[in-house]
Amino acid sequence: MAGSTYGTLFKLSTFGESHGPAIGGVLDGVPAGLLLDLVAIQQELDRRKPGQSAIVTQRKEADEVEFLSGLYQGMTTGTSIGFIIRNTNQRSQDYSEMSKAFRPSHADFTYQQKYGIRDPRGGGRSSARETAVRVVAGAIAKQFLAKEGIVVDAFVDQVGAIKWTGEWNENLRSIRESNPIRVPDSETAIEMEDLIRLVRKEGDTIGGCIRCVINHVPVGLGEPVFDKLHAELGKAMLSINAVKGFTIGSGFDGVTMRGSEHNDIIQTNGITLSNHSGGIQGGISNGMPIDFRVAFKPVATIMQEQPTIDSENQAVSIKGEGRHDPCVVPRAVPIVEAMAAMVLFDFVLRNNAVK
Amino acid sequence: MAGSTYGTLFKLSTFGESHGPAIGGVLDGVPAGLLLDLVAIQQELDRRKPGQSAIVTQRKEADEVEFLSGLYQGMTTGTSIGFIIRNTNQRSQDYSEMSKAFRPSHADFTYQQKYGIRDPRGGGRSSARETAVRVVAGAIAKQFLAKEGIVVDAFVDQVGAIKWTGEWNENLRSIRESNPIRVPDSETAIEMEDLIRLVRKEGDTIGGCIRCVINHVPVGLGEPVFDKLHAELGKAMLSINAVKGFTIGSGFDGVTMRGSEHNDIIQTNGITLSNHSGGIQGGISNGMPIDFRVAFKPVATIMQEQPTIDSENQAVSIKGEGRHDPCVVPRAVPIVEAMAAMVLFDFVLRNNAVK
Amino acid sequence: MAGSTYGTLFKLSTFGESHGPAIGGVLDGVPAGLLLDLVAIQQELDRRKPGQSAIVTQRKEADEVEFLSGLYQGMTTGTSIGFIIRNTNQRSQDYSEMSKAFRPSHADFTYQQKYGIRDPRGGGRSSARETAVRVVAGAIAKQFLAKEGIVVDAFVDQVGAIKWTGEWNENLRSIRESNPIRVPDSETAIEMEDLIRLVRKEGDTIGGCIRCVINHVPVGLGEPVFDKLHAELGKAMLSINAVKGFTIGSGFDGVTMRGSEHNDIIQTNGITLSNHSGGIQGGISNGMPIDFRVAFKPVATIMQEQPTIDSENQAVSIKGEGRHDPCVVPRAVPIVEAMAAMVLFDFVLRNNAVK
Amino acid sequence: MAGSTYGTLFKLSTFGESHGPAIGGVLDGVPAGLLLDLVAIQQELDRRKPGQSAIVTQRKEADEVEFLSGLYQGMTTGTSIGFIIRNTNQRSQDYSEMSKAFRPSHADFTYQQKYGIRDPRGGGRSSARETAVRVVAGAIAKQFLAKEGIVVDAFVDQVGAIKWTGEWNENLRSIRESNPIRVPDSETAIEMEDLIRLVRKEGDTIGGCIRCVINHVPVGLGEPVFDKLHAELGKAMLSINAVKGFTIGSGFDGVTMRGSEHNDIIQTNGITLSNHSGGIQGGISNGMPIDFRVAFKPVATIMQEQPTIDSENQAVSIKGEGRHDPCVVPRAVPIVEAMAAMVLFDFVLRNNAVK
Repeated sequence: MAGSTYGTLFKLSTFGESHGPAIGGVLDGVPAGLLLDLVAIQQELDRRKPGQSAIVTQRKEADEVEFLSGLYQGMTTGTSIGFIIRNTNQRSQDYSEMSKAFRPSHADFTYQQKYGIRDPRGGGRSSARETAVRVVAGAIAKQFLAKEGIVVDAFVDQVGAIKWTGEWNENLRSIRESNPIRVPDSETAIEMEDLIRLVRKEGDTIGGCIRCVINHVPVGLGEPVFDKLHAELGKAMLSINAVKGFTIGSGFDGVTMRGSEHNDIIQTNGITLSNHSGGIQGGISNGMPIDFRVAFKPVATIMQEQPTIDSENQAVSIKGEGRHDPCVVPRAVPIVEAMAAMVLFDFVLRNNAVK
Repeated sequence: MAGSTYGTLFKLSTFGESHGPAIGGVLDGVPAGLLLDLVAIQQELDRRKPGQSAIVTQRKEADEVEFLSGLYQGMTTGTSIGFIIRNTNQRSQDYSEMSKAFRPSHADFTYQQKYGIRDPRGGGRSSARETAVRVVAGAIAKQFLAKEGIVVDAFVDQVGAIKWTGEWNENLRSIRESNPIRVPDSETAIEMEDLIRLVRKEGDTIGGCIRCVINHVPVGLGEPVFDKLHAELGKAMLSINAVKGFTIGSGFDGVTMRGSEHNDIIQTNGITLSNHSGGIQGGISNGMPIDFRVAFKPVATIMQEQPTIDSENQAVSIKGEGRHDPCVVPRAVPIVEAMAAMVLFDFVLRNNAVK
Repeated sequence: MAGSTYGTLFKLSTFGESHGPAIGGVLDGVPAGLLLDLVAIQQELDRRKPGQSAIVTQRKEADEVEFLSGLYQGMTTGTSIGFIIRNTNQRSQDYSEMSKAFRPSHADFTYQQKYGIRDPRGGGRSSARETAVRVVAGAIAKQFLAKEGIVVDAFVDQVGAIKWTGEWNENLRSIRESNPIRVPDSETAIEMEDLIRLVRKEGDTIGGCIRCVINHVPVGLGEPVFDKLHAELGKAMLSINAVKGFTIGSGFDGVTMRGSEHNDIIQTNGITLSNHSGGIQGGISNGMPIDFRVAFKPVATIMQEQPTIDSENQAVSIKGEGRHDPCVVPRAVPIVEAMAAMVLFDFVLRNNAVK
Repeated sequence: MAGSTYGTLFKLSTFGESHGPAIGGVLDGVPAGLLLDLVAIQQELDRRKPGQSAIVTQRKEADEVEFLSGLYQGMTTGTSIGFIIRNTNQRSQDYSEMSKAFRPSHADFTYQQKYGIRDPRGGGRSSARETAVRVVAGAIAKQFLAKEGIVVDAFVDQVGAIKWTGEWNENLRSIRESNPIRVPDSETAIEMEDLIRLVRKEGDTIGGCIRCVINHVPVGLGEPVFDKLHAELGKAMLSINAVKGFTIGSGFDGVTMRGSEHNDIIQTNGITLSNHSGGIQGGISNGMPIDFRVAFKPVATIMQEQPTIDSENQAVSIKGEGRHDPCVVPRAVPIVEAMAAMVLFDFVLRNNAVK
């Protein structure tokens, strides 16, 4: 129960540090008989990988996944899928200073205190590199969801104070994929990109938001009481590095609303006039689009000198080295989609069980 | 895995509908040898129970817990604690109309669709009455946390658009408990109370926010990757009825900040200058106060006529009957504390395991 | 994870001591829409209850189950079923001596050492009374299995050295139920009964075996590797009080066989010529009857004086008081069936999930 | 929940088929700060690997484990340990016939029926090759147990009808390791070896038994009710390929005993005069040696012609090809030890949690 496993029936167990030989996972509970589209899986990894555009970290990792089991002639066999991604572009020397001093607001301090030991290279287990493994599992989940018609789309809707407030539809997918921010609007993309470049120039970082819309969800996913669908989505999102907030539907805006205004009136076709519920009522999907937002704080590692302490509790100063993202949200879009897909498919399986 | 169990080592399994004979639970993983303060447990139930003030639902439930096992001469024996709370003030006839029509934004529709059957009286399993069971388990968790010095305090900091933005300290506890809102400021309490009375008069409901501060947390609680401390807190909060959002530390405000501003500088005493992290870094507590906020939507059941559909998909109109809260946050304070206490103590046990 | 929960999807959490106010459980993962036969559930409890014949303990417990949730108009709603059985015939004074001294081969010593405290009345949590809760859950599982055509039958096939070596068929059910031993042969029943009477007269106890045959099992239940069907059945049986051994199919007799003799030849109708496998191959049911045996040791509490130690490590002697079974197997038959039914139905649900 | 994960706190998730690129696992819940003895881990693998003596399968697999994470400078970091073992000596052509026909008493038929697809090469996921992964995890568990003084020893005590009935002590370890059978008696080893050679010559296979003794176990390991220590040991053993039976302490021999004879009298030093309990009472260790036995059936794949059916339900005949063990018990000794060590250490962690 040390936290490296996610899911109830569709279950991912992960391992790997940023600068060890490889990261990887075991995905269990995969139904038999699906011919996996391996190209699509690699494409998801490419959406997450470093070095893909000018505004993200310039580390070069191929992020090629090697499948070791669970497939026969490309088809899932119902047994666990083991896979690894080799780490290829480590520059451990970049972390020599960090091995002594604790980066402010990073996991350096807490890992050291909890375990009495840590792999200081690249953040070790706390590195966001770990999320590549989630992207592989999520890409597989997406292929199973596609069979049910369920489509998961995330996109950036805020960088710093710049917001995009349009409504998502699937036609925006090509625009989202054509700009390095992954916002579904080309002009907003340019503004956001400019802000990120400015921030990076200052050796600083900036936060952002991702919104996720899941369409064509059947009624009935989610379990009563503790395993409400949005509770599990919330946990999944909050488990992603740098996430500080999660809202479903109206979120914090619902606080100031009256019930008479907030209630989603159901029509005879089962469709509601509004979607303040975000597609989930009483923890169970109601057939409307699931709609949630995730807040990411600015990356802790900055290229500016900051005071801190080292492992001997001495006051020192630290300045980030290595190659870091000035803003995580562009690369976090496929991670949000991956976690959402894993949660949804897990609930599909849980629902199947008792049908 | 149908969602009625919470926790990894300190584990609560619950049952019960609003209008059945009783609700209750089994609490397993309780360490042996603590003399339970049963009065304190009942006090927590009293903080949650209906009818406690003029601005909450006027149902009268004694909410008396009966312990059935796991205690010998008042002391925990290390075996599972079974307990029930009898339902005593049911007026099932209030729900006759609801048994046919689906209340908008309520779980009526989704339960009916998922299961093909539901207990229509009082919301059945989806009723917030279920949370009384959590309050019992949380009150027990609090007594174990007290042995570690950990103190959990929640309070209302927003009703509708009225906010209290002060800083929490334990001296405010008596103020919080002396007003029916459970906001730690007497003047704000009056404003909020006035708003709730107004809203109720209109047959409407209003949302609100609860903030929770956990003091004296040791460094090292929480697990890497999926079971980050704030991810589990987020799930716990989002599993409470009517919750639509969760933030830790800076939350959505962190999005617009620069890293240089957001980073919490660590001093040689281990204390950070700011607490944008909300007491958790890399998913693990850093010894600063854990600080999170929870958004509650307005209650779905309103005393106004609304259009909806019935189980035969016919358009009908519905008007809430029965006795409902115009605003849930005053009674949700002990629930937030209970879930937070359960999460924290579960991580204390998980941490003990590998020490 | 303190051991009071069983099952993956069909999940029972139990509580209760022998001499507390009640025992009970929460059964989660129950599919919606089955009209429960409550009489059949009570009948199973009656098969387990004390005082039912001259050769079992003469305690009088009504063992009446009270359902508290999860049913609406007698039908399962898909939500957790809470239930209790009140303890009504406690004679705690019978245990005054036992509260100081540790009964040899009983759980008194290990509980005291593990927890530093124990409920000494009637064995507390270690009492076989706890199994009544399993019988309720198992009786519900049986009703769901019946919908799949699966039938679980256990029977006594050995008491002391007296064995019944016939083959089970469903016509023997009436014979099994017509004798107090629950062996499917009337003459053997008399022999076994005589032995038990003799043993009891000596103030002693005797062991026995139960065999369980599950017919009409579909092919495909069980999971590869760790959760093999017979591994889970083994755990379930070994978790019953006094069980010291479990075999599936050929069991220990298979050790001396050659592969050429042991292999079950498959015919074109899928039926195998022999069933040394006991209905399970590679951890997965093959459609043949599941066939296993369970060994029960003699009950530890005897009516003879025995040396032992007390909680101060002083040598003392102890003689059982209270009303105990001279041989557990007659009353253990419904417990074996209950656990087997719970395991089977859990695997039915797990199999449904990925279909 | 598809069965590839074992353990509650010390948790292994495995993957891999016999003839895929690699097998491996993720081991989570590993405490930080232990310098792993990698040589000792490889030695355990060598005890299991094929080709180690004349009487086991002559496949040549190096079985070299590659650790991918969770270690820093050889020391455990508290994060999950990922590892793989490459498959190097596959002769898939040996399985061409088997891909069509179902080997009697093998998992071929059940996997095909359950999943509609299977990897026919070498048994795929049902291959005992999977147990090499368990041996790695078990070897790590052993090193943690050694810190607690707990020592796990298994040995062969029966091959066919030849039994060794001596008492185990740690001085016998060198004898056990000096013969290819792993029986702690040189003369019995020769007899058993002769029998295995004879059986192999006939193209046949033979069963056997392994006994496991765990010394220096503290009092208090194991949990009440469902997670009794011997129940979990039973599940662990029954999850090993070819196992058909498990007994603890007196096992099936206890059935014919009287309570007065079976009871283990406790002396003032806490040591019992006999150990019919096998070191566990009420599911919890009592400080005496844990002592259990495991029955292995003869290997299903034989070098004789047998009738069977193919995937089109046609009657065919099959004769084993490839290189198989005539008797599994010599190579199963380290597997039994590994699973026992994993179970014990998991309960050590569970016990730590609530101390």
